[in-house]
Amino acid sequence: MSDSRLKIVLVTPDIPYNTGAIGRTCLALNLELILIKPYGFSIEEKAVRRAGMDYWKHVDLTEFDTWEDFIETRNPPRDSLYFFEEYGDKTIYDPEYDPNGYLVFGCETKGLPRTILDGMDDRVFKLPMINPRVRSLNLANTATAVMYQAMRKQLGG
Amino acid sequence: MSDSRLKIVLVTPDIPYNTGAIGRTCLALNLELILIKPYGFSIEEKAVRRAGMDYWKHVDLTEFDTWEDFIETRNPPRDSLYFFEEYGDKTIYDPEYDPNGYLVFGCETKGLPRTILDGMDDRVFKLPMINPRVRSLNLANTATAVMYQAMRKQLGG
Repeated sequence: MSDSRLKIVLVTPDIPYNTGAIGRTCLALNLELILIKPYGFSIEEKAVRRAGMDYWKHVDLTEFDTWEDFIETRNPPRDSLYFFEEYGDKTIYDPEYDPNGYLVFGCETKGLPRTILDGMDDRVFKLPMINPRVRSLNLANTATAVMYQAMRKQLGG
Repeated sequence: MSDSRLKIVLVTPDIPYNTGAIGRTCLALNLELILIKPYGFSIEEKAVRRAGMDYWKHVDLTEFDTWEDFIETRNPPRDSLYFFEEYGDKTIYDPEYDPNGYLVFGCETKGLPRTILDGMDDRVFKLPMINPRVRSLNLANTATAVMYQAMRKQLGG
């Protein structure tokens, strides 16, 4: 893949509604959506299409059976990987986003597995929050906020 | 109200899931959530709380019966109002957001009523999109992307 576009990677997503809504944002911004199995739902499920509305069928979607498959196939440079978690010193505002980068999000209930993040501490970015009561936001909301941050320059911001 | 915080205003929201998720983002950023009636759901509905998770009860929530009630009670300076729609020349990246500003979103199905927007063309901002096939994003996703743009400075970005 040599197209100069950001890619959104959802690792083992749990909630069809979120995947559908993220697909809709990806389509709006012409970004590829990459899903890593297993999912907590069937990709054919009505809830995915409903959240993605009539857009879902147009989403540029690629599926991989495992994270390792994804890494082997795409062979992404380390610095093109951006992992988003609730912790980490750096925030979504910090990176100069690689226009070919991969924005990687974990599943709603468990986040990203430790095995993926091993040795990647400097590639982890958090969505900053003010109220410590809140541990996380809805995944689709988070992903959209990150996408509009990462695409800021391309969108004239 | 003299507290220096952005406020999120949802005008006649339709979908409980979105209002709940937006409440969760508001709580995370310590922002007030203002709802303008009528809603397409009961505010007591389980779906609101489910999307807001255990956070919903902590949201700083204010309700108004009508837009006019809101304007009379809060008396917001014109330049503190930011309306978000799919059209408009300016984007979410353009404003220097007033830290006391009101970020105003219309309902999922119909957007903001023309009566509210009359004479406010210069206060309308769009979430830029690349693919003309997509008319709009999910409301909660849009609102969260806007909030993280408007709060950029306060969050160290």
